[in-house]
Amino acid sequence: MDTLIALDIGGTQMRAARFALGAHTPQEIRKVPTQTPGSTPEETLFHLVESVWPSGGAVRAIAAALPGPIDFQQGVLLTAPNIPQWRDYPLPARLEARFGVPAAMDNDANLAALGEWRFGAGRGHHYLLYLTISTGIGGGVILNDHILHGARGLAGELGHLTVLPDGPLCGCGQRGHLEAVASGTAIARQARAALESGIPSELSLHPPPAAKQIAEAAAKGDALARELLAQAGYYIGVALADYLHIFNPTCLVIGGGVSRSGDLLLDPLRAAMQAHVMSPEYLKNLTVTTATLGDNAGLMGALALAERTALEKQAAP
Amino acid sequence: MDTLIALDIGGTQMRAARFALGAHTPQEIRKVPTQTPGSTPEETLFHLVESVWPSGGAVRAIAAALPGPIDFQQGVLLTAPNIPQWRDYPLPARLEARFGVPAAMDNDANLAALGEWRFGAGRGHHYLLYLTISTGIGGGVILNDHILHGARGLAGELGHLTVLPDGPLCGCGQRGHLEAVASGTAIARQARAALESGIPSELSLHPPPAAKQIAEAAAKGDALARELLAQAGYYIGVALADYLHIFNPTCLVIGGGVSRSGDLLLDPLRAAMQAHVMSPEYLKNLTVTTATLGDNAGLMGALALAERTALEKQAAP
Repeated sequence: MDTLIALDIGGTQMRAARFALGAHTPQEIRKVPTQTPGSTPEETLFHLVESVWPSGGAVRAIAAALPGPIDFQQGVLLTAPNIPQWRDYPLPARLEARFGVPAAMDNDANLAALGEWRFGAGRGHHYLLYLTISTGIGGGVILNDHILHGARGLAGELGHLTVLPDGPLCGCGQRGHLEAVASGTAIARQARAALESGIPSELSLHPPPAAKQIAEAAAKGDALARELLAQAGYYIGVALADYLHIFNPTCLVIGGGVSRSGDLLLDPLRAAMQAHVMSPEYLKNLTVTTATLGDNAGLMGALALAERTALEKQAAP
Repeated sequence: MDTLIALDIGGTQMRAARFALGAHTPQEIRKVPTQTPGSTPEETLFHLVESVWPSGGAVRAIAAALPGPIDFQQGVLLTAPNIPQWRDYPLPARLEARFGVPAAMDNDANLAALGEWRFGAGRGHHYLLYLTISTGIGGGVILNDHILHGARGLAGELGHLTVLPDGPLCGCGQRGHLEAVASGTAIARQARAALESGIPSELSLHPPPAAKQIAEAAAKGDALARELLAQAGYYIGVALADYLHIFNPTCLVIGGGVSRSGDLLLDPLRAAMQAHVMSPEYLKNLTVTTATLGDNAGLMGALALAERTALEKQAAP
């Protein structure tokens, strides 16, 4: 039985999983720390791939989800947080040279979008937006069943839309981006400011709450925590109305840790989106839903990319 | 010699032009009012097409630029301003039935984008954004040499991005869209408010100036007029920074009447875009330019669409 290998590579850990062709549950899955003493990240990765290599049957393709921007024209990962060794790093070429198998890569947000489209909340849709709300806000766009990359692979940065001109500083250095007002980091910052100003809440300032504690407090009914999630949902909804006008998708998938708050985030999100859309035509047959693949979205997207890579290499000998 | 027929249909007038295959200048071009007594718009259009029909040689395809939203799944023009007779109107099917020739349609902003991409300021680019700044703000997006339509043909509404939350009312009924702060209509409204508040200018309140007079005054050095163009350029620039993050194009083409002010609009636009982009990577090899096809952009886009239609029908017998 031929197989595919999917990789999910982060600054902290790397995961590798082997799947039988057409299967969605791995035959084998392993993870290791990305940085280990006495081994380069490439050596660590190659050993990891070997550890899931099948004893029989061919590996038809390997695909990797990566944490940084990619230049597809040159076939290199430009940079990756916490992997300083990988600068302008030609991962697919290195994998192909080492294992003699077709290889491909994409960034983790794009592959999370592809994963949800192929195996998760977005199955059956051809035009899909995926937004991940965690420390930052990332995104991926599926248009006509393909990932939007743009000219050099830098498209789909859906968290870096200006929603509040001259607003709070964003992780990217600009102001008022969606990420700066609605990410987990932004919600935590707003919670601290609210607590410091004396707004009553079961949240404590010592230590200041992270997004996870705020979500837990919201689930228990804390008014401040709910207001903060609602405000984040509002801005995400306004941004999604803009994205409806731009992309006219049929499916919006919201992932990332903050999305685990479910309707506490999604109800105000939907309300703001519906209030800000220019025509009800954009809402017809539109699905707005949370992601279903959780932390496996990137890995499953890498599997979807491996499937495509195997098919393409088969078609073009 | 085989030919193509391009149509540019507006609420006021319709134009038809016949081109030899591969040529960019028409062999024949005619225009008529869209609404004429005693004739439906369809009859008027059919007569117009007949008036440019060649005496010899085959017409390989007809394509039309239309002023309203299109449902591509159903193949109908949904609505068109000032053409109430055309509601859910299957124009390509009607043209094919009447003339026995492959036919296609798209909206005028999308085809202006395609026209600039094929024959105008965007030649040679594969990822292009076109923004037309006139009474409203429209747009078209070329991704990998194809028009972005979205699931139902409603994508690419680039003027309806929220740039100023709770800002002025937009033509679409929402607030603070780019169109509401930077279109010709918005500039004229701002000029009137400034004049009423007593700001000195060579512009007169009687009658209140339109965007065209403001552009003329700016060209002559009027400080208020220049400030208004600069402010519009600023907001367009902020929106374009967002669009760089979303699409990662290599070419931005600015068309429409307001773009005739050239660098009085484009200099502040470029400055705002560069100040708001999250990484200089997005500016590498980026061309920002005014449109070159002027009022012919839609017609030339229809020619580009007719070329494609002829090729596709040839390939799929």
